[in-house]
Amino acid sequence: MIYADNSATTKVKPEVIDAMLPFFGEHYGNPSSLYAFAYDAKRAVEEAREKVAEVIGAKSREIFFTSCGSESDNWALRGVASKFDGGHIITSAIEHPAIMQTCKYLEKKGYRVTYLPVSELGEVNPDDVRAAICDDTILISVMTANNEIGTIQPIAEIGKIAREKKILFHTDAVQAYGHIPINVDEMNIDLLSLSGHKIGAPKGIGALYIRTGIKLNNLICGGGQERGRRAGTENVPYIVGLGCAASLAARDMEENIKKLSAMRERLIERVTKIPYCRLTGHPTNRLPGLVSIVIEGIEGEALLLNMFNEGICASSGSACSSGSLDPSHVLLAIGLPHHIAHGSLRISLGEENEVGDEIKIAEAIEKVSARLRAMSPVWENGKPMWA
Amino acid sequence: MIYADNSATTKVKPEVIDAMLPFFGEHYGNPSSLYAFAYDAKRAVEEAREKVAEVIGAKSREIFFTSCGSESDNWALRGVASKFDGGHIITSAIEHPAIMQTCKYLEKKGYRVTYLPVSELGEVNPDDVRAAICDDTILISVMTANNEIGTIQPIAEIGKIAREKKILFHTDAVQAYGHIPINVDEMNIDLLSLSGHKIGAPKGIGALYIRTGIKLNNLICGGGQERGRRAGTENVPYIVGLGCAASLAARDMEENIKKLSAMRERLIERVTKIPYCRLTGHPTNRLPGLVSIVIEGIEGEALLLNMFNEGICASSGSACSSGSLDPSHVLLAIGLPHHIAHGSLRISLGEENEVGDEIKIAEAIEKVSARLRAMSPVWENGKPMWA
Repeated sequence: MIYADNSATTKVKPEVIDAMLPFFGEHYGNPSSLYAFAYDAKRAVEEAREKVAEVIGAKSREIFFTSCGSESDNWALRGVASKFDGGHIITSAIEHPAIMQTCKYLEKKGYRVTYLPVSELGEVNPDDVRAAICDDTILISVMTANNEIGTIQPIAEIGKIAREKKILFHTDAVQAYGHIPINVDEMNIDLLSLSGHKIGAPKGIGALYIRTGIKLNNLICGGGQERGRRAGTENVPYIVGLGCAASLAARDMEENIKKLSAMRERLIERVTKIPYCRLTGHPTNRLPGLVSIVIEGIEGEALLLNMFNEGICASSGSACSSGSLDPSHVLLAIGLPHHIAHGSLRISLGEENEVGDEIKIAEAIEKVSARLRAMSPVWENGKPMWA
Repeated sequence: MIYADNSATTKVKPEVIDAMLPFFGEHYGNPSSLYAFAYDAKRAVEEAREKVAEVIGAKSREIFFTSCGSESDNWALRGVASKFDGGHIITSAIEHPAIMQTCKYLEKKGYRVTYLPVSELGEVNPDDVRAAICDDTILISVMTANNEIGTIQPIAEIGKIAREKKILFHTDAVQAYGHIPINVDEMNIDLLSLSGHKIGAPKGIGALYIRTGIKLNNLICGGGQERGRRAGTENVPYIVGLGCAASLAARDMEENIKKLSAMRERLIERVTKIPYCRLTGHPTNRLPGLVSIVIEGIEGEALLLNMFNEGICASSGSACSSGSLDPSHVLLAIGLPHHIAHGSLRISLGEENEVGDEIKIAEAIEKVSARLRAMSPVWENGKPMWA
């Protein structure tokens, strides 16, 4: 089997499992306890915080552990919004559901939200950000890189505008953290969401970077954990695991970018030769391992299941919304019509993939798309009926 | 070392670790993915849900996994409150900080909260609940058992009143779940918070029971996980671990209650013979393994550190607020003056403790309190200066 769905989730790295294990059985103390038995847990949490911070040029005390990227996103948006009594938020039309749904919720609560359009390559235009700013804009939230089409956003430019206008700037970096270089100072990022399970740590751990001095309300109130900003007994093993995975990601980032970009390019080159098959997202300014395509005349779910029969795990877009039958809001936002957006496929390569996997994947896509088109009611004489 | 701080956190059970491990490395698929590789993860999550539900007589689809008890508490309170535009909430004066702080937050947002007083044994009087109900009461939240003094509340009576008045009833059962019998139907509970790390699952997993038909807003918006009610990729290993721990807790509950209550009674009998040392909480209607005392003339932190030097891990109250120097709000609520509340000690025995540990603990308490009193500026001639 070739696992090519690393944007959905990654396998936990063996080093990460090894790092976590002692904190289930041996060092099981509650880091908030006062006795020395709990110090190992406490120390391990602080070491992990340091490692997570380092990857994005943050200070250790600016990292607050959460249970996932979605929690971080919700915290950032709702935490800032609830400091104000109404106001205006700027985001993009292609954000992850954790941002989109939170914005919808805030709209119900009386906040105004601008969903910036994107280019057909999936890019937010910084000029649009500037033009959208109102007197009561309280937050700009634009993702670092898109989870479905891989396009990397002009975060530094947007950050510069936000800083200039003294507006808080949040970025959902769940797909980008540990995969591409990010520096919160150079990019003027005030709040950044990240998640463990996209970089070889387990599902169920994330963090929110909060620049020193930034005020936002808590999402989870209670005990004094995380310096009083996120209640709940610390998930020591996963925090340790996230720290370990962050270090490994930083260490291997350059090498991984090189390897995965090359694989990605070979895969794109080959599959875009299939007639009526095109790349979505930016051709070069995209996540190293992410190939997203639409294959006309084919239905995404059938495509996935047939790919799986060929031994390839892939996705039709994001795993988060794969229960739904609606076409992706991202593909619609880059201007694809419904009938084409339905034939989407996301291949997300990770460092576990071997060079050569991309060729096997390309062969499977060729084979499967030919087979499905042969049975497709909307495919005739070598082209889709709308062509 | 004798670990006697099981109310702060428990060691993860070996069976739980074994159950979790395959879901880090082998079955690492994202349960929301469509291909068969992810089915193992999906199935394991649903089996765990069934196990967690069974312990409290709930239906499997009424269990929603969260990252901790604090998240469950926040979700219950804020999720219900935000369905209304203001209103009245009834809770008790001795709730966990996750409830107290959330209520304080809601007060700032314009909700009214009644904090019911408790008896000197730490009991909420159901008549007080009834008397506090207003026309606009939207929620009653009373904990099942207190985390500091162990008193078990008259949940069935409160539930009956809530049902009769058609008001939602939430209970924070973090300390009680898996330790004492709870039945959501018999007790008319609508919402119940539980946590894994009090029953031998790891820190970082919890659940909220939501009775079928009960509407509340999401705390974490985003993808369609947990039937659209709690976003974030499922923490498959910990969910599996929680299911395993829940089953073990249910299987061994009767035996554990018997063993731990007997140990508790022996410990209470012995330490209450120390002059100016008294039990806090209800003498019999209390958590099986929890012994809470105040030792006059002694300062809690010194007590803890000296106990640790004697090889005993204990707590001064709750681990969640142990960073703070203020005396516990629980001890103040049961009528203890500041100078006495400062000398509190919580011994929480768990099934890992061996019969006989309670004697060693009692001996350590005797030794340490004699030593500290000999040095205490407020202890003279065999009694505290205020006696």
